Amino acid sequence: MDILAEANRLRAVGKPVISLAVGQPSDPAPQVVRDAAAQALAEGRIGYTDALGLRPLRDALSDHYRRHYRVEVPAERIAVTTGSSAGFNLAFLAMFDPGDRVAITAPGYPAYRNILKALGLEVVEIPLEGMAYLTADRLREVHAATPLKGLLFASPANPTGAVMPAHALQKLLDATAELGIETISDEIYHGLCYTEADTTALQFDQSVTVINSFSKYYCMTGWRVGWMVLPDHLVRAVERIAQSLYISAPELSQRAAIAALTAQDVLEPIKSRYEANRAFLLKRLPELGFGIAAPPDGAFYAYCDVSRLTNDSMSFAKAMLSESHVAATPGLDFDPQEGHRTMRFSYAGTLDEMREATDRIERWLRQR
Amino acid sequence: MDILAEANRLRAVGKPVISLAVGQPSDPAPQVVRDAAAQALAEGRIGYTDALGLRPLRDALSDHYRRHYRVEVPAERIAVTTGSSAGFNLAFLAMFDPGDRVAITAPGYPAYRNILKALGLEVVEIPLEGMAYLTADRLREVHAATPLKGLLFASPANPTGAVMPAHALQKLLDATAELGIETISDEIYHGLCYTEADTTALQFDQSVTVINSFSKYYCMTGWRVGWMVLPDHLVRAVERIAQSLYISAPELSQRAAIAALTAQDVLEPIKSRYEANRAFLLKRLPELGFGIAAPPDGAFYAYCDVSRLTNDSMSFAKAMLSESHVAATPGLDFDPQEGHRTMRFSYAGTLDEMREATDRIERWLRQR
Repeated sequence: MDILAEANRLRAVGKPVISLAVGQPSDPAPQVVRDAAAQALAEGRIGYTDALGLRPLRDALSDHYRRHYRVEVPAERIAVTTGSSAGFNLAFLAMFDPGDRVAITAPGYPAYRNILKALGLEVVEIPLEGMAYLTADRLREVHAATPLKGLLFASPANPTGAVMPAHALQKLLDATAELGIETISDEIYHGLCYTEADTTALQFDQSVTVINSFSKYYCMTGWRVGWMVLPDHLVRAVERIAQSLYISAPELSQRAAIAALTAQDVLEPIKSRYEANRAFLLKRLPELGFGIAAPPDGAFYAYCDVSRLTNDSMSFAKAMLSESHVAATPGLDFDPQEGHRTMRFSYAGTLDEMREATDRIERWLRQR
Repeated sequence: MDILAEANRLRAVGKPVISLAVGQPSDPAPQVVRDAAAQALAEGRIGYTDALGLRPLRDALSDHYRRHYRVEVPAERIAVTTGSSAGFNLAFLAMFDPGDRVAITAPGYPAYRNILKALGLEVVEIPLEGMAYLTADRLREVHAATPLKGLLFASPANPTGAVMPAHALQKLLDATAELGIETISDEIYHGLCYTEADTTALQFDQSVTVINSFSKYYCMTGWRVGWMVLPDHLVRAVERIAQSLYISAPELSQRAAIAALTAQDVLEPIKSRYEANRAFLLKRLPELGFGIAAPPDGAFYAYCDVSRLTNDSMSFAKAMLSESHVAATPGLDFDPQEGHRTMRFSYAGTLDEMREATDRIERWLRQR
């Protein structure tokens, strides 16, 4: 957050900042989404919806699972949420009690840790130690040492972009089922995998809670609309908690989200641009001394080992921003233990920005 | 919720249901609000904002306090939230620890109790026992018996519509300050007081946390945007928690909300309609046997004592809905102890609806 604030400050005083630090697409939502929102505005009242969301959106999401993954998910098990942020909070409240031990991986999305702690849950951070993703064997080890109540993982992952192959996902879910660990699969970066087809946890285990959102692939961050797929026994609990904690997700965003599910013609070219950026950075960053710390097979992040350049990624990122006007995220947010030697580069911008940013970094590194 | 679901079901099969059960305005947001949203849509990307909200909206809210209440509230102490729902959750998380005793009044808005319990706080319900609002003396009694960490109250109140006069509010806040009780003032129904000018808790005590929203007076329920006014020492805590739990309120709604603060020319006539509905119901409901249980001086609710008609308001409300197609809310949601003999009528609809609904109830009561 310090880097983002400083980047905004520099921009405000006219500096030509390129930000590879933000976790959101640079494109607006597809025109068809904005048209649907405009239509809803013209029609009149934007009110509360059912706590679980507008039925047409839940139906459209059920269709999405059929089309995209060939898996049957009845609309009754889908809850529309105020972004994935609400999904995490609802899942934690419905699935766990204060003091329960819930595992996440390090590095990982910092809000996981923060929300779990805010709710009084015990966070068990499993260091990946260079592995791309959590394996079934590693989970068994951790659980044998100190039994877990829950597990939350993401594929594609933030900050690494690592993707769990289907067989590894299946083995992990076999293990959670066998060990009785309640599992949440964060699939917010689905739609953005460059090496294989998306695999949802639901293809292997319908008792997993899946969290997803329209923020990333669909370019709708500020709309605050996402969804959960719940096992039957959690639907009523989530509905009740959502009614009290959120009332409903924003209606306008829900109506627009229905249109988003039809916008692949606009969204796939955006994904192709990310893919070109990714190919460029995978070559260019290592030339500059940034080692790729995990295979960036999905999302729009490259997570780099910067230990050849610094042992203090925070100071390094600050200096890089102030001297070359390129913002990237130091790793400490994602990994309190090891993040001093890592940085995350977001490639959701344009290829020209990637070129210009890396050229500036190159000049800056030469002058240091 | 049972009544709302049944009302929707009956409507869907073509029954001419009149709902006096919903807690939201029947009007759309003012045109100027929808125009601002359309403008934001046309301009392109709807993204995350700062966790505390767009600065122009925070500035506009600071102006609102100056104009509407003649009280100085710096924009730095204003947090834009995803509706008042997020405001409550953030306030509870920032102000209290699990196990802390937090008082609310009964009857009261059910989400207070539900969110407090979900967060592991101990809910102390103070029965109003026919009083319109919580007095300083009553609070002192409760606190002497079992010390409180926090207090949450609303004026105008839901479900009663009762308004705390300025001198009573001042005495209550003197007591909370003296007793060291951390206080939250829910001012979501401000703008809708029919008997006197709005008084914010901030006029007497700048250490109170105020929660408000664009949902009610501004007719923006489904937009999910509200705000908090925080004492200085809570701003950073709320910002951090909001960043993890919500990222930000929906940007489109934030931009539209700025326009809402200029829409009094549209909103005051809507308030006048509520006022006419209120005058009508205050006369008509008692004629039908519904005693007015508290002075409905604000919001758009009449809270009625139905003990002359039934001792089971839930069954009564269900029968009334199925036989006369008029929905009203049984009191149990608001008051688990005494709600079996109360009902809430919302008068946010049209005067014609109030007339037709009460005529139908009259015919139905005659035939029972």
